Amino acid sequence: MPICRNVQALAGYTPGEQPSDPDIIKLNTNENPYPPSPKVAEALASFDYRKLRLYPDPLFHAVRERIAEINGCRSGQVFVGNGSDEVLALFTRAFVETPDGTIGYFDPTYSLYPVLTEIRDSRKSPVALPDDFTWRMPEDYDASAFILTNPNAPTGIAFPRDVVAAFCRKFRGIVLIDEAYADFADANCMDIATSPENANTLVMRTLSKSFSLAGLRFGYCIGPEPLIEALFKIKDSYNMDWFSQTLGLAALNDLDSMRANVAKIRATRERVATELRGLGWHVLPSQTNFLFAEPPGHNAAEVFEALKRKHIYVRYFPAPRTAPYLRITIGTDAQMDALLQAVAPE
Amino acid sequence: MPICRNVQALAGYTPGEQPSDPDIIKLNTNENPYPPSPKVAEALASFDYRKLRLYPDPLFHAVRERIAEINGCRSGQVFVGNGSDEVLALFTRAFVETPDGTIGYFDPTYSLYPVLTEIRDSRKSPVALPDDFTWRMPEDYDASAFILTNPNAPTGIAFPRDVVAAFCRKFRGIVLIDEAYADFADANCMDIATSPENANTLVMRTLSKSFSLAGLRFGYCIGPEPLIEALFKIKDSYNMDWFSQTLGLAALNDLDSMRANVAKIRATRERVATELRGLGWHVLPSQTNFLFAEPPGHNAAEVFEALKRKHIYVRYFPAPRTAPYLRITIGTDAQMDALLQAVAPE
Repeated sequence: MPICRNVQALAGYTPGEQPSDPDIIKLNTNENPYPPSPKVAEALASFDYRKLRLYPDPLFHAVRERIAEINGCRSGQVFVGNGSDEVLALFTRAFVETPDGTIGYFDPTYSLYPVLTEIRDSRKSPVALPDDFTWRMPEDYDASAFILTNPNAPTGIAFPRDVVAAFCRKFRGIVLIDEAYADFADANCMDIATSPENANTLVMRTLSKSFSLAGLRFGYCIGPEPLIEALFKIKDSYNMDWFSQTLGLAALNDLDSMRANVAKIRATRERVATELRGLGWHVLPSQTNFLFAEPPGHNAAEVFEALKRKHIYVRYFPAPRTAPYLRITIGTDAQMDALLQAVAPE
Repeated sequence: MPICRNVQALAGYTPGEQPSDPDIIKLNTNENPYPPSPKVAEALASFDYRKLRLYPDPLFHAVRERIAEINGCRSGQVFVGNGSDEVLALFTRAFVETPDGTIGYFDPTYSLYPVLTEIRDSRKSPVALPDDFTWRMPEDYDASAFILTNPNAPTGIAFPRDVVAAFCRKFRGIVLIDEAYADFADANCMDIATSPENANTLVMRTLSKSFSLAGLRFGYCIGPEPLIEALFKIKDSYNMDWFSQTLGLAALNDLDSMRANVAKIRATRERVATELRGLGWHVLPSQTNFLFAEPPGHNAAEVFEALKRKHIYVRYFPAPRTAPYLRITIGTDAQMDALLQAVAPE
């Protein structure tokens, strides 16, 4: 059989369902319910389709300059990928040897990381979080790389910046802090990545959530130049198409619009968390655009199915640590009212 | 040093220059001089930017259905990547073990293949073509995989379909036939990939050249379902953004427009080849959208620099086998007239 052994053994990652029925209230993949910046619409309207005959800038200079400006670093410290997914896959291939390298991550966290470890054909080294899903790291922990979602998914809980910084200083491998949800949080770890002392930590962001651009595929990471150069060496030559570069730049040039949407989502998040708690749900404190919450009947799988029958899609992760909970993306206020009504006692 | 050993050792691939000066006549990266289909412009004009807040179809059903229809196969036999680059990189990771797997390719051929082998950290097994760059394969040749550009680049020479088919039947590894230029050729090998007897051969196409969509990043391959499934298992979850899916489909729904541009480019190619031969150049027979040609003074590097000073960019590959030649993309008739004038004796 000429298919690689690790690929034959793979089950693969299951993305959340993407139903095409517009009547479905889609609270299952942490998409932003509000449209992207009007600057994105303008950039799209003025995009000359004839430009598509040309290859895009292989080093995407313009977006890297803008990302460097926003985050207070040099453009040589910025890498951009076809979604954070591509950055993550390149990260495993640049910094983790196969088959003896080890990739660490918390349990629970984003379920893609173990899949990426299997695809890389390296070894998994998960760290179990305590029952309240707050930070816990063994004193003697070691791995080639650690991928840390902060705020964490699917729990929504933020690990304190100083705790993360102390871990990065001590850890001997490379750390990737996946800050997909950081714009919805009170704090973030970007200063760890941009610090002159930093030699081992990358911080990753995406335009998929706070910038409402999941369909564009744009993720980036910032860190020490030698690590960034390693990612450039192994990337596909032209990994960012013209639209990603042009519309991504337009979005990054309108932070106000992103922040206004984030403020709305945060307000809705707090309201819905309070209302669910009033209905007897156990709702974890969220610093993201979703809630991780346990229904009062301790029947998450049943509530998941009942909501689906009512055309409300949320996410249910059947693994033991996560099975008591549902992950509910924060939608518009009207969508969340529909959810609250659907879970209210009859 | 926590960067993987093979990545540290990499020099990386050097893409052709992408000058931004619009006065430059750009004949260096095999782009199409004509704009994409007007159907692409229409699809772009009617694209609702608000859709970008949603993740794209992770399995890109609509484009796969259309590609299957065009090529007479099932959609389960179709994989699509963020450019052929992504398909190639996934191919090495799905079908070539590291570090003992071997990747074969001709010398000369597309200079990315040895780089991909280094990135995969597997072994290279190049096959030297004869001096006229026609087919030559040792009787006892063996490798985990063979990547075959047909028509070949940078030579422009097409290997006969029956010779390729016989090789694929005999070869014990997986074959990827990179048909980036097949739309400019008299024949192609797609029937090898779609044949019910085929268990080891993939044929790859791109929208970058004949469809004038290098800036969109859209490559696909067709082959046996078990091989296609292996590629799906290891791809990034959402590797094709909304634009690639929507505009790619529009382009694939207007083959007439592509064929009209291809006919113009083929006519220009034959005219320019004849004129260069009249000026004493040795021009290889091309089945692509470029010419591989040796100047009469046996001074390709000098001619390359002289053309560059006149703002005409062509491609020069300094490796021993290719150093006598220049690779000249076929542009518009006006652009090629400028080239002919620039190389004419004073």
